[in-house]
Order: sequence, then structure tokens, then C-alpha cells
Amino acid sequence: MLTHLLVSALALAVDSPASPQPGTMAAVLASSKPADWRTLDPENTLYLELAAGRVVIELAPAYAPNHVANVKALAREKYWDGLAIVRSQDNYVVQWADPEAENADASKKRAIKTAKPTLPAEFDRALDSKLPFTKLADGDVYAREVGFSDGFPVARDPRSKKTWLVHCYGAVGAGRDTATDSGGGTELYAVTGHSPRQLDRNVTLLGRVVQGMELLSSLPRGTGPLGFYEKAEQRVPIKAIRVAADVPESERSPLEALRTDTPAFRRLVESRRNRVEGWFHAKAGKIELCNVPLPVRRKAP
Amino acid sequence: MLTHLLVSALALAVDSPASPQPGTMAAVLASSKPADWRTLDPENTLYLELAAGRVVIELAPAYAPNHVANVKALAREKYWDGLAIVRSQDNYVVQWADPEAENADASKKRAIKTAKPTLPAEFDRALDSKLPFTKLADGDVYAREVGFSDGFPVARDPRSKKTWLVHCYGAVGAGRDTATDSGGGTELYAVTGHSPRQLDRNVTLLGRVVQGMELLSSLPRGTGPLGFYEKAEQRVPIKAIRVAADVPESERSPLEALRTDTPAFRRLVESRRNRVEGWFHAKAGKIELCNVPLPVRRKAP
Repeated sequence: MLTHLLVSALALAVDSPASPQPGTMAAVLASSKPADWRTLDPENTLYLELAAGRVVIELAPAYAPNHVANVKALAREKYWDGLAIVRSQDNYVVQWADPEAENADASKKRAIKTAKPTLPAEFDRALDSKLPFTKLADGDVYAREVGFSDGFPVARDPRSKKTWLVHCYGAVGAGRDTATDSGGGTELYAVTGHSPRQLDRNVTLLGRVVQGMELLSSLPRGTGPLGFYEKAEQRVPIKAIRVAADVPESERSPLEALRTDTPAFRRLVESRRNRVEGWFHAKAGKIELCNVPLPVRRKAP
Repeated sequence: MLTHLLVSALALAVDSPASPQPGTMAAVLASSKPADWRTLDPENTLYLELAAGRVVIELAPAYAPNHVANVKALAREKYWDGLAIVRSQDNYVVQWADPEAENADASKKRAIKTAKPTLPAEFDRALDSKLPFTKLADGDVYAREVGFSDGFPVARDPRSKKTWLVHCYGAVGAGRDTATDSGGGTELYAVTGHSPRQLDRNVTLLGRVVQGMELLSSLPRGTGPLGFYEKAEQRVPIKAIRVAADVPESERSPLEALRTDTPAFRRLVESRRNRVEGWFHAKAGKIELCNVPLPVRRKAP
């Protein structure tokens, strides 16, 4: 009786059983070729190191080039080391930042050295033929077109000729104040609940969590307004945030992600649109963007 | 800089500031009348009591009458008392059950007294003019029509003349094995991640969490397959599950929910479809079913 709900809706880590049933995601992955996978670029991968373990974030320089560059600069000057996760709001986001960022006494704040404190927003970018796009055929409530671009869920509007990253579970963005140019990456958040798509094009998204999401999503919820922790000791200390390329190779997390521009990926989407597993009585026939798994696995040595 | 992302996407508990900005959800709630709210029926409210606090579940007898009756019978025979939350799978569900349910030695299992061990599925029900329905105009990827029925997010298919509860964050359902009639309510789950809509019409949903969701969603994720806890000591003990009507009135959680069939609720949906708060740069113009807040508040004494 405990083997209910047999297949996770969003399994980030994928283990293939020995003989997976044809038509399942496990079968698609088992039959995938090495060329169906891409190694995460260490120059565009962040490690958020917590006492509980490592959260791996893939950055999206194609969509937020200035924010990605700034976040890497912040990591390289060790801006976040010793700062903390300050907020955990149920069904919404966790957020990490300098807890003293609003202190009137500037000497209490973490100094920014080489990076920029704020940046112009990168809420969307011009549609560009160089950006890969695998369209999802099933439609979307919020955008005219949705699909995948180099492993990221994205939306497009052919009329305004814009494209943008969307707020699916695990999306990472740069918090900001009311002014659209008041963010820049010093405060980052990750989505921990149902996709808050109303935030699309309101915050600069710059990446997504590809491993260790459970270290963020299972944090106690803050009891202050907006889920901020009310006491300093409730905050979750950040040991370090590093660009993977700066970490000795032996200490890196060698990950590869399923490409999203291949027939294998299209088969994966179909395997989730119409579930062939015997447990499923009603096949949805459709799939919503944020329910499409984006598999990541340990790279074979 | 810490006041980012000002309004929760899904605030279950709603506090209205003194002078909320017109057009915001806070303003809609501040101007609501007592008749815009309905008191939760103690006969159709469950309290899941954990060491960390109480989780309040509103049951949906209009959609799953047999499962609701059986779950109440199980609560009344104290079936779950001393059992446990056995599973927490990231971005999916938590599940509570008898950890010994699959023990070959039947004497190890929690006995079922007056309730039924299994029931025929109640995946959907016939469209019935007596069921209230407030249609959401924004469409849906999975269903022809979606909206709200007595406080529950629901879908409808006018062609097959069926309606069903949907898997939004906090939805509570009856786990089952492969056979559709193998559930019955002894094992329940609650959705803790992005809405797994592929489960719609595959599991009998019977209610939703209206308070205390964070007690479930922040539980450590299980490290076994499907997020099951691997060690007995990792499970989260259930002190008791009670029908609210059976709890002394002084110990009840007096809650009321915003009705979903009123002009006030339509204004609330509009306040979330197009956010007037100054922080929002791009108004979505649309809202997806599971992003519509369903406010619940403490009933004034």
C-alpha cells in the first residue's frame, strides 16, 4: 500500500531501472545517447554551500548576461560567505542576502568590492534566431509560446519579439525593490512552491537549481511578514558561494543535463504528457511547462 | 533591500494593513462583508495533530462523498493516532499512513474497525446544476474549464459532463495502488510542490489544507525511493487526526473561508490577475487556477 504515486512529477535525479517499461521517462533516459546530454559549464555553475550540503545552480548567461556576470563577480569576491538565507515563505520562495543590507550604518553592511550593487533589469530579451527553442505544443495560461532553451523553461511573444525565463520550481532570480533597476544579484531567491508566474518579467531570473533543491525547500518557514526569519539565529548561514570553475576539480559536482533540443527530449515530454505506467487511469494528454522534468545526472567518470 | 517580492502568491492567512491600496487583494479583503465569508463546517473539517502543531483540512463531501465519510470514520475510530508521515518527496507530496501497512504479518498492521479498507474511486462526478461553479476566464492547460466550487479549485468538461477536484498546492487525496479501487483514505497525501495536474482524475481528492500547510511542506525530504523515509525514526509521528466537530469547541480552530461565488471573490481574482502594487512592472493579465489565493482567516469571536 505504500508504493502509491509511483513516479515523481519532477525527478531531478534520475535512476533508470534495469528494464524500464517502454514509453516511460525511465525508458527514454535508458535509451538516451551520450550526445543527448550536455555537461554543465563550470564557468556558469554556482555552488551554494550550506552546512546541510551543496545546492547547484546553473546560470543562464544567454538570458541575463549582466546579472550572471555580476553574480559571478560577487561569488569571486566572496560576497556571500558568512551571510545567510534570511527568508523562507511557504509556497513561494527562499531568499539569501546580507541580513544587514538595510542597516542605516553602512559599516555594518557587507562591502561590495568589484561587483556592482545594482544593475538595469534584464526581465526579457529580444527574440534572437541564435537562441535555441523547443516549443511545447500544449499552450500556457500566461504566455503566447512556451518551451525550452538550453535546458531552461522559457516563454516567447512573437508579437513583441521578446523572450524570457519563467518562474518554475527551482528558478533563481535577483530580488529587487520597487525600482526595476534596484536589483543586481546581491539578494537571490529560489522558487519553492507552485510556479509564481505573475513574477515573470518582473524580476530578473538568472538561473535554476539543478541539484540540492530539497536543502532550500525544506527549510523552516519564517514567521515574520513575507516569511522572513524573525530572529538572527533562525537564519541559515551560507558557508560560501563559488563559481564551479574556481573549485578544485576533485571537489566539483560533475553533472550533466539532458539536452532540450533533441528527439530524446521530445520523447521525454511525450512520456510525461501521456503516462503509460499502469498506475495511470486517465492520461492527461497535455503537459504544463513547469511540470516537464529537466533531468540532471551525475556525469559518468 | 529585504522587502522584495512584497505580496505572497498564495497567502493562506491574510492580514489587512490599515489602509490598503485600492485594487489590491488586501483592499478587497478589507472591504469584504461578513456575508462574503463562510464558516468551515466542523463536520467536514479534519485536524491533523503533529508535535509541531495542527494542520487543518477542509473536506469536500460534494466531490468525494464516500471517501469523506470513510476518512471521518477512520478519524473517529482513531485509526491514525500514533501512525506517521512516512513520505516527503520534494516538489511533490507528503504522505501519511500505517508504516506497517505492507507487513505480511497482519497482526502488525493497524486494524480497521468500522471504516472500509478500500472504496471505489471517486475521481470525478457528474456535472450537476446544484454544484456551485465560478468559472475562471483565463483557461487551463489540462482541462476545458476550471474555476471554483465552494472554495475548492475544480475542473469541468462540458462534453463528458464531468467535474473534478484538481491537484493544486495543499490538495489532499487518497493514495492507492494500481487498481483504481485500492484506495479508500487510510493513506492520505498532500501536495507540497508545483501542482501535479497529471494526477487529476487518477486519485480521489477529498479536501485541501487550509491552515498549517508549512508544517507539512517544510518536513525533511525522505531519501528513499519516492521520498519515503528510510528509517523509522525519521518518520513524523501523528498524535491524532480528529473531526473538528468531535473536538471541544474551546479547542477548535475557528476559521472562515472567503466564499468563491461572490463579487468580492471576483474582485480578488482580478486583483491577482493584474497587480496594481507599484512593485509590479509587468501585469500578467491572466491567472492560472492554482495561483488564485483562497483566503482563510480566524473567525472573529
